[in-house]
Amino acid sequence: MGGKGPADVGITVRKGDNFSEWYTQAVVKSGLADYAPVKGAIVLRPDGYSVWESVRKALDGRLSRRGVRNGFLPVLIPESLLKREGEHFAGFDPEVFWVTRAGGSEVGDRLALRPTSEALAYSMYSKWIKSWRDLPLRMNFWNTALRAEIKATKPFLRTSEFLWQEGHTAHAGREEAEAEAEAMLDVYREVSEEVLAVPVVAGRKSDAEKFVGAVYTSAIEAVMPDGKALQMGTSHFLGQNFSKAFDVRFLDRSNAERFAWQTSWGVSWRLIGAMVMVHGDDKGLVLPPRVAPVQAVLVPIYYSGEDRRAVVEAAEGAAALLEEGGVRVHVDSREEVTPGFKFHDWEMRGVPLRIEVGPRDVRSGTAAVARRTGGAKEDVPLGDMSRVGEMLEEIQAGMLEAARKRHAELSSSASTYGEIRGAAEGGGGLISAPWCGSPECERKVKDGAGAEIRVIPRGAAGEASGGEACAVCGGRARHRPVFARGY
Amino acid sequence: MGGKGPADVGITVRKGDNFSEWYTQAVVKSGLADYAPVKGAIVLRPDGYSVWESVRKALDGRLSRRGVRNGFLPVLIPESLLKREGEHFAGFDPEVFWVTRAGGSEVGDRLALRPTSEALAYSMYSKWIKSWRDLPLRMNFWNTALRAEIKATKPFLRTSEFLWQEGHTAHAGREEAEAEAEAMLDVYREVSEEVLAVPVVAGRKSDAEKFVGAVYTSAIEAVMPDGKALQMGTSHFLGQNFSKAFDVRFLDRSNAERFAWQTSWGVSWRLIGAMVMVHGDDKGLVLPPRVAPVQAVLVPIYYSGEDRRAVVEAAEGAAALLEEGGVRVHVDSREEVTPGFKFHDWEMRGVPLRIEVGPRDVRSGTAAVARRTGGAKEDVPLGDMSRVGEMLEEIQAGMLEAARKRHAELSSSASTYGEIRGAAEGGGGLISAPWCGSPECERKVKDGAGAEIRVIPRGAAGEASGGEACAVCGGRARHRPVFARGY
Repeated sequence: MGGKGPADVGITVRKGDNFSEWYTQAVVKSGLADYAPVKGAIVLRPDGYSVWESVRKALDGRLSRRGVRNGFLPVLIPESLLKREGEHFAGFDPEVFWVTRAGGSEVGDRLALRPTSEALAYSMYSKWIKSWRDLPLRMNFWNTALRAEIKATKPFLRTSEFLWQEGHTAHAGREEAEAEAEAMLDVYREVSEEVLAVPVVAGRKSDAEKFVGAVYTSAIEAVMPDGKALQMGTSHFLGQNFSKAFDVRFLDRSNAERFAWQTSWGVSWRLIGAMVMVHGDDKGLVLPPRVAPVQAVLVPIYYSGEDRRAVVEAAEGAAALLEEGGVRVHVDSREEVTPGFKFHDWEMRGVPLRIEVGPRDVRSGTAAVARRTGGAKEDVPLGDMSRVGEMLEEIQAGMLEAARKRHAELSSSASTYGEIRGAAEGGGGLISAPWCGSPECERKVKDGAGAEIRVIPRGAAGEASGGEACAVCGGRARHRPVFARGY
Repeated sequence: MGGKGPADVGITVRKGDNFSEWYTQAVVKSGLADYAPVKGAIVLRPDGYSVWESVRKALDGRLSRRGVRNGFLPVLIPESLLKREGEHFAGFDPEVFWVTRAGGSEVGDRLALRPTSEALAYSMYSKWIKSWRDLPLRMNFWNTALRAEIKATKPFLRTSEFLWQEGHTAHAGREEAEAEAEAMLDVYREVSEEVLAVPVVAGRKSDAEKFVGAVYTSAIEAVMPDGKALQMGTSHFLGQNFSKAFDVRFLDRSNAERFAWQTSWGVSWRLIGAMVMVHGDDKGLVLPPRVAPVQAVLVPIYYSGEDRRAVVEAAEGAAALLEEGGVRVHVDSREEVTPGFKFHDWEMRGVPLRIEVGPRDVRSGTAAVARRTGGAKEDVPLGDMSRVGEMLEEIQAGMLEAARKRHAELSSSASTYGEIRGAAEGGGGLISAPWCGSPECERKVKDGAGAEIRVIPRGAAGEASGGEACAVCGGRARHRPVFARGY
């Protein structure tokens, strides 16, 4: 029957040898994504889109319980509107794609392709919000954002167009808005950890790293196996900066006119990139069961036509049981490739469980179940597949646990500038160090050691203790931010 | 508590008096959509997006059963790529939005905003398809398409950006591809009729009206209450036109190189526009239960604080029962507006069932259920809401039946050019008439009577009988197309 051997289609570099090349191969060869003809743009193939749909579903359920409803905003934003919040515009201007022609005609007011939708959303909110009765207004938009990337692009991590969601809320009071922004950060942390099994540090960005136009930005940050930090999601408290620029006013209960307090927040398909990097191995992807397009693949194994029928029938029977139990399952009955080829193929694609059904299994009434994450195979009765659901739960939990362990190994403490620099230039990772809070000290670490303040962790972890001195200037430390080189 | 009265917020024109103004008010005042700051662009508010999500869900289930999987394509397409199928490009060129600048720099190869994705999809398919084993390839993309509209724009019907899905398939053989295109037309017909309760005529477009680049186009067409036809979805058999232009080749089982046979097909949020027009009435929207964001609204009615508690409790208990039964339900416990205001509000928004719970109902253990489509109220036990699910099914079926009746009333036959013209200039509607098949006769009817060939119905309905003469030239008739003025 021919067909290509695993050597031709498998991943040709080790994760530990050339992480960057490994990542690209893991993404492209596994069939998650591919490069589009426009610089820095990618296409999602079915498995990649399916992972994104699982993320979307997990988030949609959580948003809906918080009273957030989805809507749609167009991608084109008039330049005049985008300019209304000056600081915001200046921040995005260098990377905006501009439409200047429509058909044969010049466009008068140039049209920006949405780099983010604050301007457009709030120009609508200004029409929709009249009274305290219209608040809080909580909407979310599943769309793409477009930013012309000057830096080197990388699938999922830095692309000129990316799938994301952006939430935009308006509230009557400051405290309610601040609580909303914090609550969304928790939602993101939960999705990252519980769905994608990627542990994160949640906290606040420094002023230098906040979203342009926000009062402050909170974020979740993860650490990748190469020691670089990856921003996984952000939640912005916008104060009244945008409501004043876009005239989002309401009459309060005493009939006084007030500006709304606002938040915006988003996660993108970066989450998928993080999942690939954190969990993948030399063989390819390792998908957390909650987002795996196929959670269990059944491979019928036979060497004679005689056996074939019984084996395929048994595999299909088991698959039907699994489907009934809510497991996403696939029977690989391809005849033109060998079982060995199939094993490699599904390993590369990261399917959590492989269920082998051979003639001996049919006779014993069991099947051998192998975990993508390793360990001994388990025999499971062909007539009762309930153990498979349990195994998927165990894998999901085990992947998070293993990732937490690596996260801890990639985290360190420093108390001097030299130590920060040594760590950043060595293995990298998340470096917790005391800081006085001054932009000068922050800049010194960024320029000199290549490490930015990624996040000031919430609670005690982000606070400097009484007598601690700033690692940079020796002055009184106020915070204990996480410094790291970043993507 | 004040608040606006129904007179201020309700629809101020009758559907029969000023259909166009009625439509806009029904869409905007009900909260489905609103105008965006860019000409011809609209924003979807939560109810509008929720209807679209229901359509998406209905279609996704059907696509998945057909082996179609979702993916993602970027919105930017290089001009050089778009030009590769010349006829296709020429067709779309007059309405393409062009990106010419990114940040501060000029873009070399101009970037088109996707008017449709054949060019981009097939340039990817050309990479992914190598052998007969890779076929059939069936993918679908939920995204937006952008077309600079020169004609008058209208929410959902003609907008510069619109939500849609576009499916793209590649097959080894011509017959398989043709069958695929036909099967998709059936899927669209089913979704339009069974989900949105909008009856359609399915068939083939004339050569003059086909998709640029297709061998032929099939379509479903509905008739709106103003007698104009609305194209609800199209399915194109592309032959090898695009596979040759974009080099989509495969090795067949005998190792010979062949070009793939292709189809593409799509429906857009036009379906929502049709639903509004076909079912709405003077009070506003009438939503088919299968897509209604809220299927049943519970309105607690009380005049004293004493009654309030018992009534709200009963309403919430009933709502919990309904939710358990899978009904999308909302309890309107607003205190600042009257029950009368709420009735009007939910009528305008088209909610299929209103469940009134007053003190007398609590005592009798029942609630009064009113249908948005009219008729007597029904008493339903507060402790057993199963009747509500049945009523929703009855409403769904009743709406389709009523729409079929109006569709039949708006359909007529003609056997001469004068009759076609008379019908088109009179009440309009779908005019079935014999046609010889010549583009000249087709053009004469379009130019002279303003009626295009919308569709040549499938089967006997679209065939001319033996002795029939072309309504225009008197020559031998080959088909019985449907002529109509269109949107």
